[in-house]
Amino acid sequence: MNTQFEELKMYESFDELANDVLDLANEILPEQMFYLTAFTDSQQVILKLSNQKSSIQITENMVVDLSTSVCNRIDFENNQPLRYEDIKRDCDVEEVERLLDDVNIRSYLGIPISLTNGEKFGTLCAVNDEASVLDPRSIALLQRIVKLFSYYLELERFVWRDMLTELYNRRYLTKYFEDDSNTHGALFFLDLDGFKSVNDRYGHDIGDTVLQEVAARLQTIVNEQGDAFAVRLGGDEFVLHFSQAAGRDEWGHIATQIIDELSRWDEGYQVSTSIGIVTYIRDKRTTLVTLLKQADEALYQAKSAGKRTFKFVH
Amino acid sequence: MNTQFEELKMYESFDELANDVLDLANEILPEQMFYLTAFTDSQQVILKLSNQKSSIQITENMVVDLSTSVCNRIDFENNQPLRYEDIKRDCDVEEVERLLDDVNIRSYLGIPISLTNGEKFGTLCAVNDEASVLDPRSIALLQRIVKLFSYYLELERFVWRDMLTELYNRRYLTKYFEDDSNTHGALFFLDLDGFKSVNDRYGHDIGDTVLQEVAARLQTIVNEQGDAFAVRLGGDEFVLHFSQAAGRDEWGHIATQIIDELSRWDEGYQVSTSIGIVTYIRDKRTTLVTLLKQADEALYQAKSAGKRTFKFVH
Repeated sequence: MNTQFEELKMYESFDELANDVLDLANEILPEQMFYLTAFTDSQQVILKLSNQKSSIQITENMVVDLSTSVCNRIDFENNQPLRYEDIKRDCDVEEVERLLDDVNIRSYLGIPISLTNGEKFGTLCAVNDEASVLDPRSIALLQRIVKLFSYYLELERFVWRDMLTELYNRRYLTKYFEDDSNTHGALFFLDLDGFKSVNDRYGHDIGDTVLQEVAARLQTIVNEQGDAFAVRLGGDEFVLHFSQAAGRDEWGHIATQIIDELSRWDEGYQVSTSIGIVTYIRDKRTTLVTLLKQADEALYQAKSAGKRTFKFVH
Repeated sequence: MNTQFEELKMYESFDELANDVLDLANEILPEQMFYLTAFTDSQQVILKLSNQKSSIQITENMVVDLSTSVCNRIDFENNQPLRYEDIKRDCDVEEVERLLDDVNIRSYLGIPISLTNGEKFGTLCAVNDEASVLDPRSIALLQRIVKLFSYYLELERFVWRDMLTELYNRRYLTKYFEDDSNTHGALFFLDLDGFKSVNDRYGHDIGDTVLQEVAARLQTIVNEQGDAFAVRLGGDEFVLHFSQAAGRDEWGHIATQIIDELSRWDEGYQVSTSIGIVTYIRDKRTTLVTLLKQADEALYQAKSAGKRTFKFVH
């Protein structure tokens, strides 16, 4: 799962540290134009740029399709930078030459930024409208700066995500509501059925594996829904947030899908889920605390009705 | 509470990143000798050094008393570096001049390394046996490197500590036993009495505050004992590890002190603790899992005996 832009907005020191990285990079190769990028599943975004050269058509917030991104050709797996001191001379891939030439780039250096879980974050790039010397020593120094930066990114993930499942955590959900970026939507409050028995019978390690599998399935469901995200509140409690407008039928359809997905266990675990659903249109009185409380009450109704079902807030 | 050296040993990438920082620093001021230091409550340790100058008497693993440490005079609160381009010319504090002169340092730059919770970690220092130019631009770049490095340190704290209480977490305890650094000791397994009622009656926020207060009191107790540390396993379960050799009387004395400390609540909370105690001499069969299981059984005995008491493993 790639870092999403909604998430980057919550990284409190991101702008500051991105500037630090670019300033340090400029110190090492003063002639270059530098920029930081991030990948999503299908695109690359130019996050921050320094030493702008008017001749080069790359700007902040520019979005590039991954299929036409030269940075996407970097060898992330082996953490190897991609380097063309002079694309007319060094580059034997015609498409790359054309893509760089289109934005008036003559020399290109792309340094991969990966997280420790192997996930691609993005790149630090140095480009120029003329051929450049990109010496190995400078590249090594830039890689060290990138490595330090990647630990900052990692730290932010820890802050906003649950460590066991890598879903978002309660803090993320709270910040999302504080930032007021949503006008309406639905919260699904999930509490697993039968999870305690798994823990008691098979031990905490298996219990943790079940939680991770539940998280993976929930993540797949929110990915399918598009504008949605999954949160682990703690223990076996999860919250899904959906931003679309929909009627009860549609919500009910999604809830049924979730219950089905979380009831299939080849290992024979007797695990499923109950769900309390609250929909909302945002006004000043709508707080996350209230919504969670209402959803929790609906969840309680679902549990009382025999579990493995969902209930709406009345 | 300062970072301790036991903890630094567990930071997997510490050596690598310390080298990165020193190499980047040397790139900025190539004439200087650089070193990284860390503070404990009473001392400063030279962790890593680069560009060694034989004339300067500072070496890796050297330990300096904080009272005689020039770095300890850095203004951490305002995150201000301390700079003497030429101590004979710039330094008007006689003691500082003498301390630096003693180790043959003529120019000194000390950059504070702080964590985001305000805790002093240590310093990045640049020294020379002759007067130097320490220009503001270079200092600003070094501060940026230090800032990136401090996020790495912060990340490691997240890995090894419980976020709510800042005590160590289960992972730390496990690593401590894996590293085999202990030959004997005692584990106290604590489970609070009456904590659930606080949560139910006053809500989770107050519950969290109680856990933080419990943690602070436990930390004070392990600090008094010297070679000991406190862990939050999760929920209201804590483990204390003591490395000293002691008889049952002495362990019982410490346990009684803990129970007394955790029973005083001006706010009227009916909270206390039960404790299961296991002592051990390390051999190949002694695993943490076994010890925790035994201590947990003793804890169960303490609960059965009416709570607010301690029991030893038979």
